[in-house]
Order: sequence, then C-alpha cells, then structure tokens
Amino acid sequence: MTATDLQAYMDHVGAAARAAATRMAAASTAAKNDALRRLAALIRTEGPRMQAENAKDLAAAEARGLAAPMVDRLRITDKVVAQMAENCEQVAALPDPVGEMSNLRRRPTGITVGQMRVPIGVFGMIYESRPNVTIEAGSLGIKSGNACVLRGGSEAIHSNLALWKLVQQALQAAGLPPEGVQLIETTDREAVGRLIAMPEYVDVIIPRGGKSLIERISREATVPVIKHLDGNCHVFVDASADLDLAVTVTDNAKTQKYSPCNAAESLLVHEAIAPAFLPRIGAIFAAKGVEMRCDAGAKALLAAVPGAKLANATEQDWAEEYLAPIISIKLVKDVDEAIAHINRYGSHHTDAILTEHHPNAMRFLREVDSASVMVNASTRFADGFEYGLGAEIGISTDKFHARGPVGLEGLTSLKYIVLGQGEVRG
Amino acid sequence: MTATDLQAYMDHVGAAARAAATRMAAASTAAKNDALRRLAALIRTEGPRMQAENAKDLAAAEARGLAAPMVDRLRITDKVVAQMAENCEQVAALPDPVGEMSNLRRRPTGITVGQMRVPIGVFGMIYESRPNVTIEAGSLGIKSGNACVLRGGSEAIHSNLALWKLVQQALQAAGLPPEGVQLIETTDREAVGRLIAMPEYVDVIIPRGGKSLIERISREATVPVIKHLDGNCHVFVDASADLDLAVTVTDNAKTQKYSPCNAAESLLVHEAIAPAFLPRIGAIFAAKGVEMRCDAGAKALLAAVPGAKLANATEQDWAEEYLAPIISIKLVKDVDEAIAHINRYGSHHTDAILTEHHPNAMRFLREVDSASVMVNASTRFADGFEYGLGAEIGISTDKFHARGPVGLEGLTSLKYIVLGQGEVRG
Repeated sequence: MTATDLQAYMDHVGAAARAAATRMAAASTAAKNDALRRLAALIRTEGPRMQAENAKDLAAAEARGLAAPMVDRLRITDKVVAQMAENCEQVAALPDPVGEMSNLRRRPTGITVGQMRVPIGVFGMIYESRPNVTIEAGSLGIKSGNACVLRGGSEAIHSNLALWKLVQQALQAAGLPPEGVQLIETTDREAVGRLIAMPEYVDVIIPRGGKSLIERISREATVPVIKHLDGNCHVFVDASADLDLAVTVTDNAKTQKYSPCNAAESLLVHEAIAPAFLPRIGAIFAAKGVEMRCDAGAKALLAAVPGAKLANATEQDWAEEYLAPIISIKLVKDVDEAIAHINRYGSHHTDAILTEHHPNAMRFLREVDSASVMVNASTRFADGFEYGLGAEIGISTDKFHARGPVGLEGLTSLKYIVLGQGEVRG
Repeated sequence: MTATDLQAYMDHVGAAARAAATRMAAASTAAKNDALRRLAALIRTEGPRMQAENAKDLAAAEARGLAAPMVDRLRITDKVVAQMAENCEQVAALPDPVGEMSNLRRRPTGITVGQMRVPIGVFGMIYESRPNVTIEAGSLGIKSGNACVLRGGSEAIHSNLALWKLVQQALQAAGLPPEGVQLIETTDREAVGRLIAMPEYVDVIIPRGGKSLIERISREATVPVIKHLDGNCHVFVDASADLDLAVTVTDNAKTQKYSPCNAAESLLVHEAIAPAFLPRIGAIFAAKGVEMRCDAGAKALLAAVPGAKLANATEQDWAEEYLAPIISIKLVKDVDEAIAHINRYGSHHTDAILTEHHPNAMRFLREVDSASVMVNASTRFADGFEYGLGAEIGISTDKFHARGPVGLEGLTSLKYIVLGQGEVRG
C-alpha cells in the first residue's frame, strides 16, 4: 500500500468506528448481550472454517521458521474454539457498566448531583500472535458500549479476519452496527503508526506485546495508552513472617508459572528471618532449577544448599524482569529499606509483603507505589479474573485512569449528571 | 538564564519535588491539616508584607500599561487576604482522601481484594495573573498528599514568591518537607516547556489560562494534562419544557455572569415551543443587551422583540465560546437533533435540557457526551463547590481520569490491595 492509500484506508476505518461509537454507546444491554451470545454460537458452528483459515497462518509461520512456542500460540485448537465461545457468554453474563448512576446526592441549592458511567468512545487494540484476542477485545468492546479498532499481528491475519467476520455478523444480527468492531485488514506496519496518532477517531490505545513495542507506542501515541511495560514483582519476607506461609507463597509467586507478568522476579528478605527462611526456599528453588542471583549476605546463607545455582546479583538484576527460572535475592534490614528498594527498582506492577506484623503490613500497603500491593498472598493473583472483574483487557501500571487489571470499567468514564427542578445560581 | 542553567535549575526543582512526594504521601492527616491551619494564620499575620510585595507587581503592571481588569485580578486586597486564609481552613476541614479503602470483597480463593486511594505523586500547575492560585493549588497539593511545582505568571512573580515563602514556612513548622510545594522562581518562559516535559519528576500538568496556552501545553506535554479548552455550553429547551422555568434557567445560564466557562453560549429551542418561548427570553436578552445570533427560524420569531440585537448565525457561531453578552440561537425539530448538534459543535463541558418529558431527559443525560449533563438546572452549577467537592483545582473535559470539576480525588489514584492469609494460585 502506498502511504496515501494507507492514510485513506485508516481514515476510513477510523471514521467508521467513530460513527459506530454513538450507536454502540446508546445500545441496550439486551442488544449487546444478544450480539455476544450470537457470536458464541457462530464461533461454535464456524469452528472448522476458522481452523481452515488458521491453517494458512500456521503453514506460513512454519515456512518462515517461526519458533514452536510461537506457532503454538497461533494455533486455534478445538479447545481454543470452545474457550472463545465461552468467553463471549461470560462477558454477556457480566453486569452492563454503561448507564450506572452513582453518588447521587441532594445539594443545599436543591440540585441533585451524581455521576453516570458511559463508554469512552473508540479504543484501539494492538496485539500479537494469539488470534483469540480478536474475540476477547471485540467482546469487551461490545459489552462496554465502545467501538474498537483491532490490529493483530501479521502472522495471524487469516485467523483474525475469519474471527472478525463472525463478530460483524453477530453485531448485524443483533441490530448493532457491524462497524462497531473494526479489524485493520492490511498487514502494513505503518498502520500502527497511524492508528496511535488519530485522536479524531481513536480515544485510547491498549497495546499488548513486548516491552520495546509498548515503549514505542507510548512514545509516539497522541492519545492515552493503557499499558504496563513489565512486571518486576517483589516478595518481601518480613522478620515476623510465618515461615511455612512464606515458603509456600514465595514458591508459588516465583515458580507456579515463569512467563506471566505477575510472577515474582525479586525476593527481599529481612535479615533477622533470612537464616531460617533462605535455606528452605533455596532448597525448593534448587530442586526446580531456579537460578538465584544474590547479594553477599543472601549468598552466604544459601551457600550450603545442595545443588543451588547461585550467582552474584548486579545492579541490573534488581530491575530485571526475567520471565524465566531466575530470581534476584537481597537481604534488607527493615521494612523501610524494602519499601525504598521496591519503589526504586520495581516496575509498579505487583508487590507483596509476607508478615504477621500489622503496622508493617499497613505501611507496605500505603507506601509501596504499585498498581497491586498485597499482604500474605501470591503476586500471581494480580489478574482481572482473580480480582472479580469478570474480564481483563490489559493491566495498567500508570496512575492515571485505570490502574492494575483493567476490566469493563476501565473502558468507561464517569460524567457528572445534575437533576434539578429549575434551580439557578444566585 | 542560559539554557544550560535553566535545565539545571528545573532538574533541581523537579528532583526536590519528587523526593518530597514520598514524604508528603506518607504524611498523617493531622500533620497536613496542621500545615494548612498554620498557613491560614501566616497569611493573616503576614498580609501587609504580602501586599507590599504585591505592590511591586502592580506598579510594574501599570508601568507596562496592563489593562485595568488584568491589574485588578493581580491585586491582593484585604478581602483576597481573608479569602486565602479561609480557603486554607476550608481545605483543612475536608476529609482526607488519602488512604481511603473501598470495595474490599472476599474472593472465592480466600483473598480479600479492594482499592486504596493514594496521591498521584507530583503535579505541575501553570497559571496566570491571580496570585491566590498559589495558595489554592498549594493547599490542595498538601491535603491530597502530593508534591507540586507551581508556575505563576511573570506579572505576579513578587506576590507569588511572598505567598510561597509562607507555604514553605507552614510546611516546615508542621514537620513536612518545605520542598513539597515548589514555585518556579525564574520568569524565563522556557521553564514552562521544561516543566511539561520531565515525566521523571512531574506526573501530571494542570494548566489554567487562555485556550491557546492550554492547546500548546497539551500538544507539547509528555505527561497527562488535566484541562478544558473552552466551554461552549448549551441549553436545550424541549417541547414540553415548563415555560417559566425555561425562561428563568436560560436567563441565569446566559446572563448571571458572562465570563465563566460554564455560562451558556448556545440556545437550542424545540420548534414546537419556540413561538411561546423565544419572544419571552428574547425580551430579557434585549433588556440586558445580549446579542442574539440566530438561524432563520429563530430570527423570524424574535423579529418583533423591541430593542433586540439580532444577527444571522454563521457556522462558526455554533462552535463559539463568546464569554460575552452574545448567544447563538437555533431551532431544532426534536431531541435527536439537539443531542447531535451538541455532540458535534459543543466542547464537552456542560449542557442542559429543560423538559418535563422523562424519556427525553434520560436520553439527553445518557447521550450527550459532556463532562456535566443537566436536567432543568442552570449550566452555571458546573463547579466543584456547587457539586460538593469542597474545592476545585480545575475542570476536565477529557474522558480519562478526572472528568468535570476536579477536586482532591482528581489528584489521587486508586491502587489495588489484596489481603491474604497465605493463599497461592493453583
């Protein structure tokens, strides 16, 4: 596509989304749920056809020599088909956030002032690989009354197009504008640059992908971006922690899965409990092949653990998101040092204190400047479903608008409403 | 100042604010209120000294030939001194938003999930003329647990410096870091460009001033901006409106004051009620010297009003914020046309419907895409104090984060908190 053609195409997509947004915002809950249930049904009946389209992407990926885990993420298995359909039905079952009125209170002047929840307008979603995100984002867009513009990875283009057709079919059948969910049909890379810089059509961008992609998008976007760059999550084992609990939770936070952004990457241990705690967790890490990058104090306490993979932590380790069987370990002398370390080196994603000491728990909750702060629980719980949001379109580590796991509410805004009986200002 | 010196100076100011932010965030409610009450006392005792500094600004302004209304806005009268002191006491009396915990609910896994309100960190405030904004912004910064960097107009530099010294004295006396409130001491214009582009030190910018200044800041800022550009507020008189109410409210919305951003600038009238309504409101506007820029239908109905200043509205009039005794008037055929017109030409600030018809009132509330939407009340009520926020640092017409009048809550963020008893993810 020439630059002129691309510009014209993106303007067309954006304008169609903007026009559809008004109708999506005014849509009844019944119509939106009808669209979502029809989409679930279509995904089930059209599964084989989607898989045929998916096969084209898989063949191309294999021909290009894409790594096996990447190819796996791309594959629409029967299980993925079933999950996508269920996902739509779950979103249909969620309460409609749009139109919720809250905090309505009478003022001394006689007016009643409160807030109403309304859709943001149009969101742009940029993602890679897994084609089921097309259904996740589309279904959350429909339920939240927003229009959306989806931009999947070029490696999944046939799969995404097939899924998107079903979304449009479901919208149409439910009496909603098919343009309410747009998919960018070109794999031209310049389309992303344009999508993030057309505030006249798109109100917010939600990127999912690698850190460098998200950094680039944040830098170049001219609209707000809901994002997290990485998750350097900490577990701090305080002096008074219950030892068994600390071992269980630290193990879970690090090793239950290595790749999620809410897995622990850094372990801070109060020096008073370290001699009792570190050899125990060290033995588990050793057994699971987790490399421990330690400060001098921690390393000395772990030296006797059989089979432990120990290394000296560098300054860079304190800031690192490994997403791998590696953890940095540091002794601290008190909760102040732990909080200061986390606020300095962390990524403001999710951090936990393990303690029996109430004042330290409260200080940690108040003073750790992260989207999720936990007491005596695994960082792995930082997730929209675990938090009861019913869905998750992304995670935000920014302090503006949505913070932490972002569900339907994060795709809405609160406007003020005033109900009067002819009041005027004196 | 050379560019290098300015850069070093701004880095110094920013770093000091960032360092103070941690201590401000952790400050007790008692200490913050103590600082605010001490500030009120200092303003009262140091009034004459502030007025002596203010006299330097006034003399300079008059020497430069600044227009009289501008000089008036600059003047720290005895009344302004009293108001500033009262303002600090009022902010001290407001509930502390920081540390508020909400929506704490037990999840099936056993963890309790909720949210905690915390300060944003550092905000930058850019304003012109009225030096009392130094006290308003500083007091809201203190109460909300943020650090702030204030940048007033060069025409008020002596006044602002004198007020700021009192703020720092009050912070110090209350055991809080004086660097919690910074004032940019140079009048170098380049300082603004730097202030809005140092995300490492400043989390959000709040500009007050003319539209072109705010547009420039929004365009060049690398952090979020809480702002409204203008207030093209509409009153829509529906077919079923109570005539007396419609006359009273429309008159108040337009003429109670001409300069505020929540004054009405556009009047939409249902064609069925226009013959009864327009001559009545037209007579009032004529008596008050309000020029009416009309479409053909409205003009015909107003032609017989004695002394009416009538003109033909141009396309530009529908989008104009006059801030003057001028109003645009247009007939519409139904609520759909009114909503579409407002969403197209309005500035998403404040719009009101006057109607007895419940379904139209509800549609207007839902579908008008503005920060404040009203039924049967004057647009002039769109204000933090009238809404019960207890304070107002600005108004936002954006949909992200704070929308509408912004009080203490708009200077905070909600993080997730998780309280567990050793739960892990399975």
